[in-house]
Amino acid sequence: MANEYKFEGWMGLDAESAKGKLVWQDFEPKTWEETDVDIKVTHCGICATDLHTLRSGHGPSPYPICVGHEIVGKAVRVGKDVKKDIKVGDRVGVGAMNSSCLKPECEECSTGIEHHCPHMVVTYGSNYPDGSRSQGGYANYHRSPSHFVFKIPVELRSEEAAPMLCGGITMYAPLVDNDCRGKKVGIVGVGGLGHFGILFAKALGARRVVGISRKGDKRKDVLNMGADEYIATDEDEAWSKHHARSLDLIVCTVNSNKMPLTDYLGLLRVYGTFIQVGAPEDVLPELHAGALIGKGIKIGGSMIGSPTQIDEMLQLAADMKIKAWVQTVAMRDVNKAIVDQDAGKARYRYTLVNESNL
Amino acid sequence: MANEYKFEGWMGLDAESAKGKLVWQDFEPKTWEETDVDIKVTHCGICATDLHTLRSGHGPSPYPICVGHEIVGKAVRVGKDVKKDIKVGDRVGVGAMNSSCLKPECEECSTGIEHHCPHMVVTYGSNYPDGSRSQGGYANYHRSPSHFVFKIPVELRSEEAAPMLCGGITMYAPLVDNDCRGKKVGIVGVGGLGHFGILFAKALGARRVVGISRKGDKRKDVLNMGADEYIATDEDEAWSKHHARSLDLIVCTVNSNKMPLTDYLGLLRVYGTFIQVGAPEDVLPELHAGALIGKGIKIGGSMIGSPTQIDEMLQLAADMKIKAWVQTVAMRDVNKAIVDQDAGKARYRYTLVNESNL
Repeated sequence: MANEYKFEGWMGLDAESAKGKLVWQDFEPKTWEETDVDIKVTHCGICATDLHTLRSGHGPSPYPICVGHEIVGKAVRVGKDVKKDIKVGDRVGVGAMNSSCLKPECEECSTGIEHHCPHMVVTYGSNYPDGSRSQGGYANYHRSPSHFVFKIPVELRSEEAAPMLCGGITMYAPLVDNDCRGKKVGIVGVGGLGHFGILFAKALGARRVVGISRKGDKRKDVLNMGADEYIATDEDEAWSKHHARSLDLIVCTVNSNKMPLTDYLGLLRVYGTFIQVGAPEDVLPELHAGALIGKGIKIGGSMIGSPTQIDEMLQLAADMKIKAWVQTVAMRDVNKAIVDQDAGKARYRYTLVNESNL
Repeated sequence: MANEYKFEGWMGLDAESAKGKLVWQDFEPKTWEETDVDIKVTHCGICATDLHTLRSGHGPSPYPICVGHEIVGKAVRVGKDVKKDIKVGDRVGVGAMNSSCLKPECEECSTGIEHHCPHMVVTYGSNYPDGSRSQGGYANYHRSPSHFVFKIPVELRSEEAAPMLCGGITMYAPLVDNDCRGKKVGIVGVGGLGHFGILFAKALGARRVVGISRKGDKRKDVLNMGADEYIATDEDEAWSKHHARSLDLIVCTVNSNKMPLTDYLGLLRVYGTFIQVGAPEDVLPELHAGALIGKGIKIGGSMIGSPTQIDEMLQLAADMKIKAWVQTVAMRDVNKAIVDQDAGKARYRYTLVNESNL
C-alpha cells in the first residue's frame, strides 16, 4: 500500500531557525515497516528540547529537521505486524522516543526500560538502523514504530494529552521511580515541566507538594494547581534556612548551571533525593561532597519514562481528571510560538493545533 | 566516685602536628554523666580524618586536640544509668560518633539514624551540650556516652575490630543502605576504607565485587581479599569503555577532586548508584547533568552508620570470620605512623596498640 499522503512539516534549516524561522516543506519519513503506524497529526506540544535542538544546543543538529515530540493525532495506517491494539481511526500519541531494539537479549528492552536501550532512537534528529532519519510532529503526518505509539484515553483532550507525552512523563517517571506517595515533594521551576510535577505529585499521593521558582508572580497559579506551598527564591528572605530539612524528594526542571544547587539540597531531609530532569547545556553547579555526605542524600537524573509508564500516566490523568494548563496555538503560527516559548511566556505549555487535520 | 586515673594522650597542638609532631600530655575529658562509660584504651585505628583534623583540613581545629575514633579497650567505669548491657571489664569500642540528643522528639534519634542527629557530637574536636570538649583515642583513657559504646564480639581481635568502628562502618552502611546483595559492586580506592568495602561487599552477598584503584600493585592483594576483579585506572587501557555499564553500585573512597568521576559513572548500569564516602577538601569534579540523566543514575553520600548498624557489622564480621588487613604499631610510635599513613603506606589500616594498657 502506497501512501495517499505526503509528509510535510515546519522545518528548521539551520541554527537560526530557533529564532522563529521554520519553513514549511516536505520531508522523507522513516522507511515503512509493517510494525509502524502513520499518524495524521492534529496536535503537537512545544518542548524546550525542540528549541535546544533547533539551535544545536546539545551539539550539531542534522538539518533540515522537523522537531516536536508531543504528538497526538489519528492513526491512518497500521502495519499488519502491529501487535498493539491500534486500529486505523484511533486517536493515538507519540512521545520523545520513537524506537529501540526490542530484542529479547537487550538488558533494557527485556526489562521494561526501553527508554534506556543503547539503540534507542529519539523522535526527531536521530537515525533508524537502516539509516533513515526520524522527523517530529510539527507536521501533517508522523510515522512511528507501534511500540512507541499510545492510545489516548477518551477522557483526555488532545491538547492536554500531547504535552504529557514528553513534559508529563518527564515528571511522572521520577515521582513514581522515587515513590513520592506519602512524601514531601518539591518541584523546582514551575514552567511546562514543573506544572506537570505539581499535578502528578498531588495525583500520586504526595503528602505535601511545594512549588519552587524564582519569582513570586506564579504563586497564585501554583497554589491553584494544587501545591500546598510556594517558595519564590528571588523574593522570600532566607528561604533556604527557613525551609531547611523540609522535603523528601525534589524534582528539578531548571536548566541552568547558575541555579543555587547547594541551597536546594539544603531543603532536603536526611536521606532525601534530588532528581535533575533539566539538562543544562554546560556543567552542573559546583558541589561539595559534604553536601551529599552530611545528610546521606542523593542527586540523580531522570530521562522521560518507559512505554508502560506512559500508558499508566495517561490512565492516571484520565482517572483523576487531571487538568493540564495548556495554551493552544494554531500550527501555522509556530514561528511566533517558539519565540514566545523561549521567552518563557507559556502558561504553562503550548500545544500546536493542526487545524487542517482536525 | 572519683577517677583513679588521669586522661592523657597524644595531642596535636597546631596544624603542624599532622607532620608527626603530636605530644603526650593530659587533657580534660567530657564532664562525667551517669550514662557514660570510661574505657581504658588498648587499641586505636588511624583514620584519614585524624590527619585532616590535625592539619585543620576541614576548617580550624580546636587545639590542643587528641584525635582517634576507632577505639577499643576495657570498660573501667560504667555509669549507674547506663541501660546497655555493659559491665566493668567488658571489651568495648567507640567509633566516630560520641553523642547525640537521643530525644524522643528528634526526627533522627527516634528513627534509628542517630548519626544524622543535628546535635550529634563527634568523638574528637566537638563540644558536648555543657561545653566540655570531646577528645579521641590516641590516649590511655576515653570517656563516651554509653549509647555509642559497643561490645566487641569475642571472635574479633581488638586490632581488627578497632578500624571497623569508623573505616568499616563507613563502607558497611552504604552497602547495606543500597542493598548490595546480588549486585555487581565496585569499590573505588582500595586503601583502609576500600579494603573493608571489598570484605563487606563479599560478606553481604554481592554478586560480583570489583576493586578499582590507580596502580596495578595492589591487584594481588585485592583479589586475595575476595574481589572478583581489579581495575588499575592508570594502567588498564580504555578501562572505562571496556567495563562500561558493568556495575550496579559503586562506593567511592577516593578523596580528590581530580578523580575521573565521569569515567567512574560510565561503569554504572542504568539506574546505578554511586556513593561518595571520601570528602574532598574542595569541590567534587565537574559533572554534566547528562551523565546522570542518560542512564537515570544517582550520586549520593554516606557518613559512618547508625549504632544499630555498627552492632550488626561487628556481628557479621564475627559470624563470617572476616579478616581485616591491619598492621599494628605501638602507640608510642604514633608520630611515625601518622606520617606513614599520610604517605599511603598502610596495608591496609594501621591500628595503634597501647601496650602499657594491655
